[in-house]
Amino acid sequence: MIQGIGASSGIAIGKAFVLPNWEWDLPEQKIDVGDLAREFDRLYEGIRTSKVEIEQMKDELREAVGPEESYIFDAHLAILDDPVFMNEIQGIIQRQYKAAEVAVKEAIDHFVTMFDLLDDEYMKERALDIKDVGNRLLKHLLGAPEITLPSDTQPFILIAKELSPSQLAHLNPNHVLGIATLAGSTISHSSIMARALGVPLVVGIESKLEETIQTGDMLIIDGGLGIVHLHPEQSLIDLYTGKQIMQSEKKQQLKGIINFKPVTQDGKEMELSANISSLKELDVALSSGANGVGLFRTEFLYMDRSRLPREEEQVEVYRRVAEELGSKPLIIRTLDIGGDKHLDYFELPEEDNPFLGYRAIRICLDKTELFKTQLRAILRASHYGSVKIMYPLISSVDEVRAANALLGSCKKELRAEGIPFAEEIEVGIMIELPAAVVIADMLADEVDFFSIGTNDLIQFTLAVDRMNEQISHLYEPFHPSVLRMIQLTVEAAKRKGIHVGVCGEMAGDLKALPIWLALDVDELSMSAHSILPVKERLLALRQQECRSLFNRLLQCRTSAEILALLELKPSEEQKAEAFPDIFKS
Amino acid sequence: MIQGIGASSGIAIGKAFVLPNWEWDLPEQKIDVGDLAREFDRLYEGIRTSKVEIEQMKDELREAVGPEESYIFDAHLAILDDPVFMNEIQGIIQRQYKAAEVAVKEAIDHFVTMFDLLDDEYMKERALDIKDVGNRLLKHLLGAPEITLPSDTQPFILIAKELSPSQLAHLNPNHVLGIATLAGSTISHSSIMARALGVPLVVGIESKLEETIQTGDMLIIDGGLGIVHLHPEQSLIDLYTGKQIMQSEKKQQLKGIINFKPVTQDGKEMELSANISSLKELDVALSSGANGVGLFRTEFLYMDRSRLPREEEQVEVYRRVAEELGSKPLIIRTLDIGGDKHLDYFELPEEDNPFLGYRAIRICLDKTELFKTQLRAILRASHYGSVKIMYPLISSVDEVRAANALLGSCKKELRAEGIPFAEEIEVGIMIELPAAVVIADMLADEVDFFSIGTNDLIQFTLAVDRMNEQISHLYEPFHPSVLRMIQLTVEAAKRKGIHVGVCGEMAGDLKALPIWLALDVDELSMSAHSILPVKERLLALRQQECRSLFNRLLQCRTSAEILALLELKPSEEQKAEAFPDIFKS
Repeated sequence: MIQGIGASSGIAIGKAFVLPNWEWDLPEQKIDVGDLAREFDRLYEGIRTSKVEIEQMKDELREAVGPEESYIFDAHLAILDDPVFMNEIQGIIQRQYKAAEVAVKEAIDHFVTMFDLLDDEYMKERALDIKDVGNRLLKHLLGAPEITLPSDTQPFILIAKELSPSQLAHLNPNHVLGIATLAGSTISHSSIMARALGVPLVVGIESKLEETIQTGDMLIIDGGLGIVHLHPEQSLIDLYTGKQIMQSEKKQQLKGIINFKPVTQDGKEMELSANISSLKELDVALSSGANGVGLFRTEFLYMDRSRLPREEEQVEVYRRVAEELGSKPLIIRTLDIGGDKHLDYFELPEEDNPFLGYRAIRICLDKTELFKTQLRAILRASHYGSVKIMYPLISSVDEVRAANALLGSCKKELRAEGIPFAEEIEVGIMIELPAAVVIADMLADEVDFFSIGTNDLIQFTLAVDRMNEQISHLYEPFHPSVLRMIQLTVEAAKRKGIHVGVCGEMAGDLKALPIWLALDVDELSMSAHSILPVKERLLALRQQECRSLFNRLLQCRTSAEILALLELKPSEEQKAEAFPDIFKS
Repeated sequence: MIQGIGASSGIAIGKAFVLPNWEWDLPEQKIDVGDLAREFDRLYEGIRTSKVEIEQMKDELREAVGPEESYIFDAHLAILDDPVFMNEIQGIIQRQYKAAEVAVKEAIDHFVTMFDLLDDEYMKERALDIKDVGNRLLKHLLGAPEITLPSDTQPFILIAKELSPSQLAHLNPNHVLGIATLAGSTISHSSIMARALGVPLVVGIESKLEETIQTGDMLIIDGGLGIVHLHPEQSLIDLYTGKQIMQSEKKQQLKGIINFKPVTQDGKEMELSANISSLKELDVALSSGANGVGLFRTEFLYMDRSRLPREEEQVEVYRRVAEELGSKPLIIRTLDIGGDKHLDYFELPEEDNPFLGYRAIRICLDKTELFKTQLRAILRASHYGSVKIMYPLISSVDEVRAANALLGSCKKELRAEGIPFAEEIEVGIMIELPAAVVIADMLADEVDFFSIGTNDLIQFTLAVDRMNEQISHLYEPFHPSVLRMIQLTVEAAKRKGIHVGVCGEMAGDLKALPIWLALDVDELSMSAHSILPVKERLLALRQQECRSLFNRLLQCRTSAEILALLELKPSEEQKAEAFPDIFKS
């Protein structure tokens, strides 16, 4: 058994295919002065060919998974235009009389080492992109064949040192049962793509692949637990096969309730919406019976490209999502970068504590042109569906008013230009800072709806960075203070008569469902794959019993006590003992 | 006028003395193989002499400013024992056949460049320490004289490129009116010492000193505003002289109320205590009429040294503070490192967001031996005064219970060892996380008192790192949400009948005083120099009017509205208009 990090959930059982590394022999001798021009020509030709190839892959990927993920290759194209990278290569050719391919190889090594040294998750990903592009260029210079995967064969489990987005883009999901890589992180491009493609992925497996896993070895990949089983016993294979069948049966069974109204036994209806980042995810959401989109994360439109998306490009995406949803609501969250989300082309300051820094609405209210471009695009899309705007990271009435003033001036511009938009577009805010919770009543007077972002709210309430392993045990969603923060927010919204939803991870957590029902939350927005399990549970609950349970939760002084009450399984004994009616179905 | 950063407040008017840099001619020729042993001997002898000299300075400083600041030189001694630094020097002698002084110079440059490159405030300070120690070693190797300041002359304003703690330790505060340095930061050792010595200091002045300021030039240093005036006009000198006289008159006038009871016009008494980090600061606090110590920051006992302080060492310091305070209360806060506070000898993990990381009580509950040593020392000191224990960064009932369990086992040990301590020692917690605020009622059941740490509380409530310049405008102490957080905390304490104080920077802010009085807070703990100004204001206020003002503050929706109400000066018109009685004196 090899422990790694689960980057895309699901189970895969099959034989390994170990991807060889891209490694070639490079010419050793120096070039003559007279050959300099020829080497430069070869370099430029290689760049041209690489660009054509990347454009092709981009097109293919767009067909396969939608336009958003294909932007990944814009970052690759940008590297081939990057003057720093190109100067390094040209400098090595010109001053050291080395062949183009040697210069490319040395430049790659130089940048990869430098980026790796920075010991920063994000820069490591950039290093991987440079390696990917550089190797492609090298391949053309050497006239080497692309290393491809076995095609039209048995489905296999792919094992690689690291997997670049371009390699992943070539994969046929029907042939690749699962993937495990030595390097990689859950936030890499490849991981995002694997999740979108629904391929189980384990990254960061610690053993030396070359020595332990061979092509043809029998493997089990557990993407949920982040485990790779090498040479599993038959009993383990049987166990996982059973699990796989159960998961697929469960999936099948859940499909039976897709068209059920999400309503409790005693008649409380709850909107179940999806959090999405792309058009592709919208399709998955709709096929899971989502009531609408409670959170469209627009930052992915800004990532993996070489410049800010123009108004027209944004309108195009927002409009397509709005049209596909029709009368179903679409909440578009304005740009939420900063913290741990960077843009290649937009320099953010170095910060000691980026989570407490220059982020989200703070950037938008500072860079008003950037913000207005997005607001105009959202307004224009509002003509084609049921669009709402949501501002992230709001801490004060001042910020809401400042954002709304900019929205007002965008409306005025569009009116003057004769461009149609929904005049009465609803505006809401994320409640994700403790400040917003305690002045929720004041904020409610300024907006049409709230959406509680539990992830950040927990983080700031407890002062715990959820990504920090050293203190991860202190990141407690079911902490008594979190419960009260949620209660304060929902009660303020109810008192003021505005719509209140939840869009953090807790929204899709089955354990938390009785809390939302007890508080009479209007909407839960979650990743598409959680919608049907949550609906199934919802159908079996009664709001009235959730209320009594919640009153008992409020008496709890520790997370452990709260979890003990919430985790009681609806088994026969417990049903009888603890909640005589709550799990009636 | 030269703009810098104010590192120690106060005004100095006088002539400049520009400190020359420590720069010497080094031997150029290489040494012979046969001379290697001799160079090593010279190196070791230089190290020995340097150590003796540093020990001497440490003793002198202990006499002058107390034992805490003298620990700074332990860090210097540690560098001379550091194997990495010494290996570098020995390596250069042995492999490059360079003279000992050349090797030392190159090693200094190497480490200083490396540390500077890291672009980290803390590492830059370490670089300065290495330079200081290295130059001392160099001085001995070269037999060069120590560069000293003019003594027994006119008092002067010291101008230096940078000032090392050892240089500062040699200063006679009676001769040095003020200091300005090109490099430096407000958190450097030198800045801490300047504040302790009461010498005005401006750091980070941006001009080229050598060219602009000459020894003998007339200067004005404004340590509060961080400004240096070069060749000031007579009118400016008169202005600042007037300001200096006013400040000293004000100081004199405030001394008149030292023995006044801190009580409002309508009889509300407020404990005014001091925040201290050392014995020296205790003397200043007592001479300012402090009611006791509301916050003894013990981390300074752990900093600037080469290993953890032993139990006996801690007992010695706590006991002396307790004895000096007598029956006046002394609240000792347990170790609060992490975040931006590091220890040289205690490795903390690299964190993306250290303020949301492994800090304070989180470290103590993880490293229980370290924690128990401190708890035992505090308990032992409790026998000699009116000592209370306070835990920082508490987020849950679980943490309080875990800390108290360790305290209980320390008590049991001491009992078994027959060592006396106060059995009924009071235990309190800092309320500085939003989590603690919303469960304050539950926490109140576990402890004897609360102290509101406004700095961190504001930071987490608003998700704003106060050190981050890019968003410093969002760090708003008078934000409506902060007001409510404070109100929630004090009301919970009052309901539960426990003592509640405030020890963050807001406690010493004159503007905030009506808030504390309205809420009936029991104690304000602040830096010693704020005590008398706060008392003066307190004597003039009436609690009843503060309550009506506070009710109006609660209606405010923005910080600007709150500040407008609080900043109304008690001028005649405003008195009449806004608060008919509040400023009666």
